[in-house]
Amino acid sequence: MKVVMLAAGRSKRMKPIEDKNFLSFLGKPLLVHQLEILKKAGISEVILVGGKHNLEKIGAMAKSLKIKIEIVEQKNLELGMCGAVLAAKDLIKGEEVMVLSSNDVVDVKAFKLILKAAEKGGAESFIIGKKVFEYFPGGYLETDKKGFIKNIVEKPEPGTEPSDLVNLVVHIHKDANSLIKYLEKADSKKDDLYEQALAKMMRDGVKMMAVEYDGFWQPLKYPWHVHSVFTYLFSQAKKEIAKSAKIAKRATINGEVIIGENVKVFDGAVINGPCYIGDNTVIATNALVRDSNVGKNCVIGYITEVARSVLGDEVWTHSNYIGDSVIGNNVSFGAGSVTGNLRLDEKNIQVSFDGKKMDARTNKFGAIIGNNVRVGVNTSLMPGIKVGGGSFIGAGIVVPEDVADNSFVRGEWKLKISENRENIASLDRKKFKNKL
Amino acid sequence: MKVVMLAAGRSKRMKPIEDKNFLSFLGKPLLVHQLEILKKAGISEVILVGGKHNLEKIGAMAKSLKIKIEIVEQKNLELGMCGAVLAAKDLIKGEEVMVLSSNDVVDVKAFKLILKAAEKGGAESFIIGKKVFEYFPGGYLETDKKGFIKNIVEKPEPGTEPSDLVNLVVHIHKDANSLIKYLEKADSKKDDLYEQALAKMMRDGVKMMAVEYDGFWQPLKYPWHVHSVFTYLFSQAKKEIAKSAKIAKRATINGEVIIGENVKVFDGAVINGPCYIGDNTVIATNALVRDSNVGKNCVIGYITEVARSVLGDEVWTHSNYIGDSVIGNNVSFGAGSVTGNLRLDEKNIQVSFDGKKMDARTNKFGAIIGNNVRVGVNTSLMPGIKVGGGSFIGAGIVVPEDVADNSFVRGEWKLKISENRENIASLDRKKFKNKL
Amino acid sequence: MKVVMLAAGRSKRMKPIEDKNFLSFLGKPLLVHQLEILKKAGISEVILVGGKHNLEKIGAMAKSLKIKIEIVEQKNLELGMCGAVLAAKDLIKGEEVMVLSSNDVVDVKAFKLILKAAEKGGAESFIIGKKVFEYFPGGYLETDKKGFIKNIVEKPEPGTEPSDLVNLVVHIHKDANSLIKYLEKADSKKDDLYEQALAKMMRDGVKMMAVEYDGFWQPLKYPWHVHSVFTYLFSQAKKEIAKSAKIAKRATINGEVIIGENVKVFDGAVINGPCYIGDNTVIATNALVRDSNVGKNCVIGYITEVARSVLGDEVWTHSNYIGDSVIGNNVSFGAGSVTGNLRLDEKNIQVSFDGKKMDARTNKFGAIIGNNVRVGVNTSLMPGIKVGGGSFIGAGIVVPEDVADNSFVRGEWKLKISENRENIASLDRKKFKNKL
Repeated sequence: MKVVMLAAGRSKRMKPIEDKNFLSFLGKPLLVHQLEILKKAGISEVILVGGKHNLEKIGAMAKSLKIKIEIVEQKNLELGMCGAVLAAKDLIKGEEVMVLSSNDVVDVKAFKLILKAAEKGGAESFIIGKKVFEYFPGGYLETDKKGFIKNIVEKPEPGTEPSDLVNLVVHIHKDANSLIKYLEKADSKKDDLYEQALAKMMRDGVKMMAVEYDGFWQPLKYPWHVHSVFTYLFSQAKKEIAKSAKIAKRATINGEVIIGENVKVFDGAVINGPCYIGDNTVIATNALVRDSNVGKNCVIGYITEVARSVLGDEVWTHSNYIGDSVIGNNVSFGAGSVTGNLRLDEKNIQVSFDGKKMDARTNKFGAIIGNNVRVGVNTSLMPGIKVGGGSFIGAGIVVPEDVADNSFVRGEWKLKISENRENIASLDRKKFKNKL
Repeated sequence: MKVVMLAAGRSKRMKPIEDKNFLSFLGKPLLVHQLEILKKAGISEVILVGGKHNLEKIGAMAKSLKIKIEIVEQKNLELGMCGAVLAAKDLIKGEEVMVLSSNDVVDVKAFKLILKAAEKGGAESFIIGKKVFEYFPGGYLETDKKGFIKNIVEKPEPGTEPSDLVNLVVHIHKDANSLIKYLEKADSKKDDLYEQALAKMMRDGVKMMAVEYDGFWQPLKYPWHVHSVFTYLFSQAKKEIAKSAKIAKRATINGEVIIGENVKVFDGAVINGPCYIGDNTVIATNALVRDSNVGKNCVIGYITEVARSVLGDEVWTHSNYIGDSVIGNNVSFGAGSVTGNLRLDEKNIQVSFDGKKMDARTNKFGAIIGNNVRVGVNTSLMPGIKVGGGSFIGAGIVVPEDVADNSFVRGEWKLKISENRENIASLDRKKFKNKL
Repeated sequence: MKVVMLAAGRSKRMKPIEDKNFLSFLGKPLLVHQLEILKKAGISEVILVGGKHNLEKIGAMAKSLKIKIEIVEQKNLELGMCGAVLAAKDLIKGEEVMVLSSNDVVDVKAFKLILKAAEKGGAESFIIGKKVFEYFPGGYLETDKKGFIKNIVEKPEPGTEPSDLVNLVVHIHKDANSLIKYLEKADSKKDDLYEQALAKMMRDGVKMMAVEYDGFWQPLKYPWHVHSVFTYLFSQAKKEIAKSAKIAKRATINGEVIIGENVKVFDGAVINGPCYIGDNTVIATNALVRDSNVGKNCVIGYITEVARSVLGDEVWTHSNYIGDSVIGNNVSFGAGSVTGNLRLDEKNIQVSFDGKKMDARTNKFGAIIGNNVRVGVNTSLMPGIKVGGGSFIGAGIVVPEDVADNSFVRGEWKLKISENRENIASLDRKKFKNKL
């Protein structure tokens, strides 16, 4: 069987985080985690479909893996999943094929379930139906009593869902040739050629079976999905504190943590797991890191709090609050700067995409910051804003809106300067001291 | 003997703190503390005079007390103490009556002293004279050698006080009927009908005896009186740490504290008594609470300092400095927000009432914040300002003046945005690391 | 032999720090340290040349020393070193003379080396040549093979230095009369009469020998030189923690420290040596002091960091970051105020002198603050700025430029105030609590 993983997407919704396939969790790109999960399911060869923008990076990464990778390029990204599968046409012809998306993080159980179902047979295609317990705006599987799929209903009105099973892009097609034929004939004005092809197959009587799955699933589409992916990957990883790590006597570590080589945790610092701390990172005096992924070569400086955030490598903080945020590589925060993560009215955070606000469906969400950003002292980033890569944010300001890549944002200061007529030198300060 | 406690005042000077009778200390409203002090003096029945605005609350509270309460309504609050006593006319007729104000906090000793003096007899009225050691702007008792009061001199010029005894509203009148008669005839254009009635009684030869008292007395008229009331009530209370409280191993508790049920004190946190910490409150990592009353269900977040302040319930802080402040219920502070509590010139703090500045007679005083307030990140409240209930204060601003109830205060931001031409990605950051 | 130490300079480049001779390190003025170093080299009598501005202070200081001091006044400060030596003319006539500057801090070894060389003889003048390993903009000694100096080349272009030996003002002249004669005839339009006299002497065949020295040398000309002087003086001092100091059980002291009488170090505080903490100073809860000199009677308040800085006496901080800074006496910082010490572009800090920017040759440098300054809450001082003595800096502002002495700098606040229509009282906050 051939396994095709679609990884050509442009990660537009994740901006300014570049290519989510290479977003790093526990020191490894997401794509590596995805391949390792497949490996656990017994899959040792994968066809990766990339785009012009990431082919080279995928290639470099593939070399270091224990899984065999073939890389193909999807030329026209507009053709979506359909174009991606067709890009691999020559490699899957005449075979059984599993189609996966690199954007969906699922437990190894999902792969094992569908492989088992396909082995057992009884249908020509198999689709994982993720059992949901509350409304999710996806494609719902309409099944008959035997579990055969009659239709996939895209984003039905809440309350009108035909089932509690959502179409998850973990599909097996016994006959790749048939799939290819339908894909080549698919026609749609929207980004749903693959889905239209499946619909046509069903209409033509191709038997598709729903494989019910109730395990972890997190589509990684928006920045507020990042933390959940961290939580899952952490839960599956081996918990270990490197022998070369130096944990000060008065530091505290609670819960489960992974701490890398040469990490230093200074006195008074507290790490509340789940936490991943990358190699060579310093958690300085009295800092607090909780429920977060901190990359390598970071400095979580004195009295900084990092909470429920995913930080890249070379992130330097210093007396900051970084909450519910996603931070790229090589980012610094000046003393006293803060990522606001809760609105005054405590309503859900709204994030802008192409000028439109989108509800992040959580009332706690901070900033999304690209690579190579510097933030000055005592600056406040409002909840849900994005700071583009290569940008500088000046001191003492409130940043209420998204900042484009390579911007320099500064405050305009109006100061009143007058003569100071108070003679403070003559004050007796001893009287204050007893108030300490 | 009938005890009449006057509790109908509108607490105008305490705004935005509503009805000081219900300001909570050590988890109980002030009025409950007042009644408990009376109970200790052997008084088991009290007539409470309320106003339309608080009758219901007083009623609800009275049910749960071990002391017997009769509640009467003072209809016309303009008539002050005189109107309050007359509101209770039918209940005190023909009796000996003790008149008290719910606004004055005194030690049980004061009640014991006056009860003993009244029992001993020798006069028709008895008035506690609080011995003062420095000028206080109150009514001074002018007495003869035998301790009989000849006159009460209201707010004499400093240096012209007729004695060192200040009229404290702990009065006993042996003949309520006589008092009522004088009160009904009293006539004044000012808010001093009760005082005028007493003056007339003295002029008519009614014998009034000064009962000297040198114990604790704190009139609760202005917000800067609140902390002193806390200090006193705390000193009288049983010190106890609930068994259900969880104090982390690396937390420190110095001095006397009262810690409620299910309180959590995290590592690195320090509590320097006297401190009251209400039920279910969290004192988070590396926070510092000193000489303060913190209500229930509060979160004193990471690296917050609360000093010499009285906080209500459901107050959430996060990397803040709350100093010399009075905070209502359900209030949150964003990370980095601060209550300034000391002027640059270190002079006394001035507080506004109806547009007029008043000297708080202390150079350390912070903010007075009503219920249901939200303060954004990195915002600074200037010393002595009042923030009305239901208000939102935006991020990154300096609030130099009082904020009315239900206001939304925001900064206006002028930002310069230009292209950033620095290529920070190319910088070698290794050279910094040795500066850690 | 007579030793003349020139101490009449006006310290213009150190403003707003007044007279660098009296800048305090380890609890003692720099001048006292200088004299103590001379004492170690066996010198027990020194002629101090002061100016009108510091004669009195020098006199007062001299009384308490174990070294014998004669003080002379240099009337015309424009005449520089030449004028200074001539001011001492009557005291050195007919003697061997050593000429030193109070601005150069060097190890005792330098004095020992030159004294030994002079004793050995073979030349009429001896000049310490400080061996440098990278370009320094000073006067380079051009020597012949035998070590005799042919010329002193002032600030050559980098790469054209005639040697690696820089003229350090530790000079011995066997014949003061000859020196005086040349000085009296010297003529120059620049501030280099002394150097011109030496050049003329060399041209006239007076033998001058270079004495090579590779030990510590720090000219104290600019504020960014201060920390290096601290580091050196600390390295030479006896490390001791006073018995009267109270170090809390949960405080941490790493590395070498000197801690004065009655110092208090509270729980959670960390001191990372080298650090000097003056008498009666408090290092409060969870504060961090590292690689710094803190004067006496200071309060390093809760969660303050002081890093690589030199603080005078009576400095009060409170939740601040003071980095790479020089702070005078009697200075306070409000909560959340910060000395920025790193540019966003991480280039070298520029400091203004008389309107011209000067490169501090380090990318980490903070503020230089004079005596009797108050800084409000949440204010940010940009890297390399100077705040004049007696100034007040208001709350919540960014100070981008130098502040003159006795200034009052305030922000201008534009706030939008509207009605708040959110009913926050009705929100259920329980759902947040599990995010703690």
